[in-house]
Amino acid sequence: MTLKPHSQPAPRPEAAAIRHRLHTIIFEADTPAGKLFDLGLIFSILLSVLVVMLDSVGPLHADYGGLFLRIEWGFTILFSVEYLLRLLCIGRPLKYAVSFFGIVDLLSILPTYLSLLLPGSQYLLTIRILRILRIFRVLKLAQYVGEANHLVRALRASRRKIIVFLFAVATMVVIFGSLIYLVEGPEAGFTNLFEAYYYAIVTLSTVGYGDIIPITPLGKAISCFIMILGYGIIAVPTGIVSVELAQTRKLEVSTQSCPECSAEGHDSDAAFCKYCGAQL
Amino acid sequence: MTLKPHSQPAPRPEAAAIRHRLHTIIFEADTPAGKLFDLGLIFSILLSVLVVMLDSVGPLHADYGGLFLRIEWGFTILFSVEYLLRLLCIGRPLKYAVSFFGIVDLLSILPTYLSLLLPGSQYLLTIRILRILRIFRVLKLAQYVGEANHLVRALRASRRKIIVFLFAVATMVVIFGSLIYLVEGPEAGFTNLFEAYYYAIVTLSTVGYGDIIPITPLGKAISCFIMILGYGIIAVPTGIVSVELAQTRKLEVSTQSCPECSAEGHDSDAAFCKYCGAQL
Amino acid sequence: MTLKPHSQPAPRPEAAAIRHRLHTIIFEADTPAGKLFDLGLIFSILLSVLVVMLDSVGPLHADYGGLFLRIEWGFTILFSVEYLLRLLCIGRPLKYAVSFFGIVDLLSILPTYLSLLLPGSQYLLTIRILRILRIFRVLKLAQYVGEANHLVRALRASRRKIIVFLFAVATMVVIFGSLIYLVEGPEAGFTNLFEAYYYAIVTLSTVGYGDIIPITPLGKAISCFIMILGYGIIAVPTGIVSVELAQTRKLEVSTQSCPECSAEGHDSDAAFCKYCGAQL
Amino acid sequence: MTLKPHSQPAPRPEAAAIRHRLHTIIFEADTPAGKLFDLGLIFSILLSVLVVMLDSVGPLHADYGGLFLRIEWGFTILFSVEYLLRLLCIGRPLKYAVSFFGIVDLLSILPTYLSLLLPGSQYLLTIRILRILRIFRVLKLAQYVGEANHLVRALRASRRKIIVFLFAVATMVVIFGSLIYLVEGPEAGFTNLFEAYYYAIVTLSTVGYGDIIPITPLGKAISCFIMILGYGIIAVPTGIVSVELAQTRKLEVSTQSCPECSAEGHDSDAAFCKYCGAQL
Repeated sequence: MTLKPHSQPAPRPEAAAIRHRLHTIIFEADTPAGKLFDLGLIFSILLSVLVVMLDSVGPLHADYGGLFLRIEWGFTILFSVEYLLRLLCIGRPLKYAVSFFGIVDLLSILPTYLSLLLPGSQYLLTIRILRILRIFRVLKLAQYVGEANHLVRALRASRRKIIVFLFAVATMVVIFGSLIYLVEGPEAGFTNLFEAYYYAIVTLSTVGYGDIIPITPLGKAISCFIMILGYGIIAVPTGIVSVELAQTRKLEVSTQSCPECSAEGHDSDAAFCKYCGAQL
Repeated sequence: MTLKPHSQPAPRPEAAAIRHRLHTIIFEADTPAGKLFDLGLIFSILLSVLVVMLDSVGPLHADYGGLFLRIEWGFTILFSVEYLLRLLCIGRPLKYAVSFFGIVDLLSILPTYLSLLLPGSQYLLTIRILRILRIFRVLKLAQYVGEANHLVRALRASRRKIIVFLFAVATMVVIFGSLIYLVEGPEAGFTNLFEAYYYAIVTLSTVGYGDIIPITPLGKAISCFIMILGYGIIAVPTGIVSVELAQTRKLEVSTQSCPECSAEGHDSDAAFCKYCGAQL
Repeated sequence: MTLKPHSQPAPRPEAAAIRHRLHTIIFEADTPAGKLFDLGLIFSILLSVLVVMLDSVGPLHADYGGLFLRIEWGFTILFSVEYLLRLLCIGRPLKYAVSFFGIVDLLSILPTYLSLLLPGSQYLLTIRILRILRIFRVLKLAQYVGEANHLVRALRASRRKIIVFLFAVATMVVIFGSLIYLVEGPEAGFTNLFEAYYYAIVTLSTVGYGDIIPITPLGKAISCFIMILGYGIIAVPTGIVSVELAQTRKLEVSTQSCPECSAEGHDSDAAFCKYCGAQL
Repeated sequence: MTLKPHSQPAPRPEAAAIRHRLHTIIFEADTPAGKLFDLGLIFSILLSVLVVMLDSVGPLHADYGGLFLRIEWGFTILFSVEYLLRLLCIGRPLKYAVSFFGIVDLLSILPTYLSLLLPGSQYLLTIRILRILRIFRVLKLAQYVGEANHLVRALRASRRKIIVFLFAVATMVVIFGSLIYLVEGPEAGFTNLFEAYYYAIVTLSTVGYGDIIPITPLGKAISCFIMILGYGIIAVPTGIVSVELAQTRKLEVSTQSCPECSAEGHDSDAAFCKYCGAQL
């Protein structure tokens, strides 16, 4: 209902026009060119990550290592050019550079250059997979973004409870780990306290590799206690997240506000305001 | 309250009568013959699957392999005839052929024929177990179907959240798997990135086989982080499903409709319609 | 508000009086003698189970096996006498004999007699631990019984959903177990389909012993799928039980009924009926 | 709205003044000196625990064992002096000595002295980590304390249900452990009933080390049953805690009190008191 004043765009030199055009293609996905760019980007990312994965397989590396290396460098140079273009065509390059995607974009090209100095660091290139998160923007998966936001909101709301829970878990790990270290000793694989804490975490989280195992009756009794504890307290984070999800869901459905008293928090199917009786 | 016009059934030739009778027996379970057919079918399926299982046991195969093979072929021919009869007696054979049960019925006979070409493929015959799902129709287990529908509805409603969650899990697996691959290397069993992802999934899901194990302190530290992460984020799908089950249950209890405005979705203890104020 | 007629007890012979007195002692816990009997019984049960456990330890059996055997027979004869007395002093012995505790009481003495024929069956004596459930009656742990009933009620209410869930799990185990059997084969430990189902259950339930392990890339991929599935669908029973516990709790607090309209289901802190406005 | 009478502090001798000043520093965290003391204390605790951990690592112990021992004794003497000062400057020393933190403070220094008699007991010094809980007071993490209280309240409210659940789990472990002991016997690692119970707990809690494994088909079948049981009943504590967290949260949000009848427990969106009808 508001009127936008008819404003003439400020006259732009050619460079600015190209920059604007680049920005539309690279950062937006509403034009055909922008969508094509993003789809090509996602395809390139997936392909480059796949090449890194395949390159880690011994026999494939032996046969196609050179090819993989050239593809890797190809993608790295491509992504480097893209990164520079992003810096060039955006209004405030620094803000982009320190944003989540800006850092991910940088981290996605650095390992290849780093591998010249430190062989092996190219496997960190798999961080490129994080760039794929842009897929949600391209495919206009608004509902998925909404659901993801709901999950993130619930996790953020339960942030403090989860930190308290992790603090309690860490305390239990230190206490019970030290106890079992004292009882079992090095001959059972508990060579130092850190191994004992590793064992306590493996047991408490119900993972149970079986690489370090108690052998004395007392050690097994303590382990049984840790197992029951771990089996029981998994209920705590689960309960926290369930309650928060239920809470944030309740908030989600109540976005309607009363035209009379502007109260919010109505059921999504209510026809009348429950506070003043006005028709919604 | 509506009147059905007295209509004479169109005169049918004998073949059509047989087809109709077959359809009643094979596809329905309301007549004694239909019920008997379905019970016999379920019994045959269970027996045939049991034979496949027993045939896989070395000593039994050595002693009774020939007998098992003949039983298997017997059931396969029986089910093939049944499949053809189903195609013959139904109105639109193509629709049945591409339906869930149509495909399962076909997949339940194909492996035996396939085992002539590819030995071993007869173990796929266990897919016949899916045919057992028909049991709910035969035994009129309506309440179980209702409960199953409730579960399916809740899972379908939480579909998007679960996909987002799986996407997040996959990202974590790629990032942490690559990290631990870099730290541990081939001598600890992390021979390539795919093994590292397998390890990350084994750890994150708290399965913990113990076939691949970190041996360096840094690798153990990263593993501890993955374990605590996996132990904690299991809360997310649990919370999602809990909330959806509670939601869909709420919908379930509101089957009362207003006699005035025929609106539905009232609380089960409401005395007046919340949309028009009429007494319920 | 009803009046009980003053009735004279029917004259009883001496035997009946003893039977009545025995019943008060053995089956009830309100008199000092009855309470003493029950406490002595619980102590005897715990001691006899402990003796069975200690007898299973090799070195202890070597040194004290004869002593343990005599104690075991002593307790068995004691419990046999008690069982016969229970049968004698109760009104309807058959009803007791087929009740839960009647069967447990019988099963608690049978294994010792059976061990004369089948050595080793005395370890089944540990079923005596079930007799301890009587402890709740003796110690008047009414609140614990109430909580236990709440849990049992919630589990019973979610009975059908849990059966449907187990049916789905069994189907998945058969399908995925057969698939991995076909892929891995005997050399990886999947010697027959039953081993493959055992593996599938070990993986799906996130137990992960690591005694049978996939070794082919395809087998590992299928295993990863089963793990993620098991990690995810644990949300289903958890959600079911959470919702049922919340439901039955809700029923628990709403036992107040309106004196005017006799409506039920009020909040526990409501002062006025929410349907007719009458004071509660 | 109440008036505190202007009271002159009773004249204190110098010793009492020092005691008062010490109390402010040691037990409180509102003055700069008190805050500095607490921060220094937390730093000392973390450092001393780290030293104990590092001392347990073989190579480090070989090289720096003497240094670690001296640091350990230094911290122990420091904490001993601090403990004595706490006893001296508090009004009722006995009450502090038997309080949670009083006992933890004592247990934090005892192991070093004990290690003179029993070598190895110094690893119990890691109990010092419990002293860190004071961090919440120092850093004024009121919100975290609130969240922790919420969790503790929910766990306390579900106390009885969890005890009933643990009782049921213990009964299952005894029954199924005895059964599998009878089926498998010593050759599979089930050397006595306690080992079998250890196995049953490892399986039921879905930890699954794989150190003891069933080898007979019947033993594997029983194990599968225990696994499915453990996978399913984890839903019970989770459901209990979820419901209690939701309940106690509901109490939390109702801090508004009626200005007329001062009743509490209103829904957070209520406009009128549900007990007397006054506007909130």
